[in-house]
Amino acid sequence: MSQAFALILAGGSGTRFWPASRTTRPKQVLAIGPGAKDPLIARTARRIEALCPPERAYIATGTSLVGVTREALPWFPESSFLAEPVPRNTAACIGWASAIIKRRDPDALIAALPSDQLMDDEPAFRAAVARAFHIAESGTIVTMGIQPNRPETGYGYIELGSKLSAGVRRVARFVEKPTREVAEGYLASGNYLWNAGMFFFRAQSMLDAIATHMPDLAEGLERIEAAAKVGSEAERAATNAVFQDLESISIDYGIMEKVRELAVIPADVGWSDLGSWHTVWELGSKDAQGNVASDSAVLVDSQNNLIEDLRTVPGGKRIIALVGLHDLCVVETDDALLIIPRERCQDVREVVDALKRRGDPV
Amino acid sequence: MSQAFALILAGGSGTRFWPASRTTRPKQVLAIGPGAKDPLIARTARRIEALCPPERAYIATGTSLVGVTREALPWFPESSFLAEPVPRNTAACIGWASAIIKRRDPDALIAALPSDQLMDDEPAFRAAVARAFHIAESGTIVTMGIQPNRPETGYGYIELGSKLSAGVRRVARFVEKPTREVAEGYLASGNYLWNAGMFFFRAQSMLDAIATHMPDLAEGLERIEAAAKVGSEAERAATNAVFQDLESISIDYGIMEKVRELAVIPADVGWSDLGSWHTVWELGSKDAQGNVASDSAVLVDSQNNLIEDLRTVPGGKRIIALVGLHDLCVVETDDALLIIPRERCQDVREVVDALKRRGDPV
Repeated sequence: MSQAFALILAGGSGTRFWPASRTTRPKQVLAIGPGAKDPLIARTARRIEALCPPERAYIATGTSLVGVTREALPWFPESSFLAEPVPRNTAACIGWASAIIKRRDPDALIAALPSDQLMDDEPAFRAAVARAFHIAESGTIVTMGIQPNRPETGYGYIELGSKLSAGVRRVARFVEKPTREVAEGYLASGNYLWNAGMFFFRAQSMLDAIATHMPDLAEGLERIEAAAKVGSEAERAATNAVFQDLESISIDYGIMEKVRELAVIPADVGWSDLGSWHTVWELGSKDAQGNVASDSAVLVDSQNNLIEDLRTVPGGKRIIALVGLHDLCVVETDDALLIIPRERCQDVREVVDALKRRGDPV
Repeated sequence: MSQAFALILAGGSGTRFWPASRTTRPKQVLAIGPGAKDPLIARTARRIEALCPPERAYIATGTSLVGVTREALPWFPESSFLAEPVPRNTAACIGWASAIIKRRDPDALIAALPSDQLMDDEPAFRAAVARAFHIAESGTIVTMGIQPNRPETGYGYIELGSKLSAGVRRVARFVEKPTREVAEGYLASGNYLWNAGMFFFRAQSMLDAIATHMPDLAEGLERIEAAAKVGSEAERAATNAVFQDLESISIDYGIMEKVRELAVIPADVGWSDLGSWHTVWELGSKDAQGNVASDSAVLVDSQNNLIEDLRTVPGGKRIIALVGLHDLCVVETDDALLIIPRERCQDVREVVDALKRRGDPV
């Protein structure tokens, strides 16, 4: 098999985990989720390490996030970090990284992976990745689809097409986030998988697809390549100039929905995108009352709450006491406290918006 | 008029204001309540100062609370603080203090006042106190009864008897905390006042009443008086010995319910006993959504909450954010956070009990 490279996509700067996640400290560098000791991105890197060790792994992130991202991956060499001059979404990012990796190894295989997901069954995940690389080696772009276990309306879906080989199907089509009813139909049919944004391909296959479907991007990448060797000042200047003008579009829209033949590996790997504090509660280890909380919490007549104490400031034990409350998320950091019903966790963005309106840093 | 002394009763160690109130830092030394900058006991002392200046004011508290109590009243001389060796409730405390004050001034008038109440209308309060002292001078024990404005079931009531003079009635009887129905009857009748635990009397009248109704206490007080002069080591030793054996009983049960003739001054003074966090919300200044909170709180779609940030540790601004929540009390101190529905504020004791059970300091 050709050499396999990991491309970890770490440009995200979401606010769904406020107050833990901040503009300068996005979700992927946080140690959140069940029993989390390490940042999500570190767990992502470790998960793929046996197939793509650090010397064959790249981390694509924004210029302003390189610092915190390197802190989360201290064993990675500086050359692993690809700083996008301006955010231009995943098509530009994956295209750019593919070009860089291809210059290093023209036969390179690449696994493009989000940096902030969880997999409960890591051996199953690696087996699926190995299978994906095997298919990708032939030139086909491959995605991994997650077996749904609920009629989730927050994800895009992949409709399965005909069988390509054992455990591999053609992608019939990508479909947008469905309504509840449609999602229930998808789940019942057994013919739809969640699109988790993981893609496996030859660097050259991706660049060929870009040449076909996103000629402007292809042209930009050629300009960068023409400028100078990887890592040089001249190359950085060319990258800056090219990125300014690139279209901001996801790899799904820009490439995947247009490519004639795509393969999908159905995977049952205990996947979670850890989408909100509610998910942290869902995945957390619960006491008899359904609370996910540390021992120092005092929960009187309270059920199904998440209590997250993420303070880092030293100083005595902190007691968090709830009386007569249920289905809340309580999240504490050094400088903020969030209290929100679990079912409204998506609305944490309203807090962030309110903070922005009054000029507070977020 | 004879000289008037204040006796501020500050032995309380309640837990209704956990996590602000602690065993070592009870309610009366806290700066809580609307716009509070000063501890409740300091506001109590200031309120009566024009009638009973610090040189004629005593503060009765527990040995372990003398330190925090003095900190709350830094302009009081050390000799103002009477430390009860062991808590023996208000009868013993008032009797003991009356004996001490009588030795200083045989004609002394005394206002015995809880240390942790609020009065919105302080001039009206002082006018009522002046009237009470006037009646007390003749030898009658006087109480101040609060005009009820709701069918409160948490207080004892005073049934009004015949008129004694302008603005002064006889006490027909003291009644226990009523049921809701009974309290509604009391409110409708206009013939019942709340018992706020404020009493006005000649030192000698109180000692006479004790001699009649609590002869054991009278005998104990005589033993202390016989021991040596006020403030001496010998007196302290005698006080320790006597207090150990005293009955623990309130002045209401021990004396007031038994005295043949008692006077009551009906008072409309904006009184509150500030009984719980709920009361702090009730009295607090509310925003358009009914929230009592500082400007740094971010309240999205949230109504009628109390947000109290009582942290003293220095360090940046703290953001407390609520989304979609109503009628909660959120109270933060340096080492604890309480979240409780307003209507369950009395149940904060369950948190304290839970902490005690697991051996945490409270």
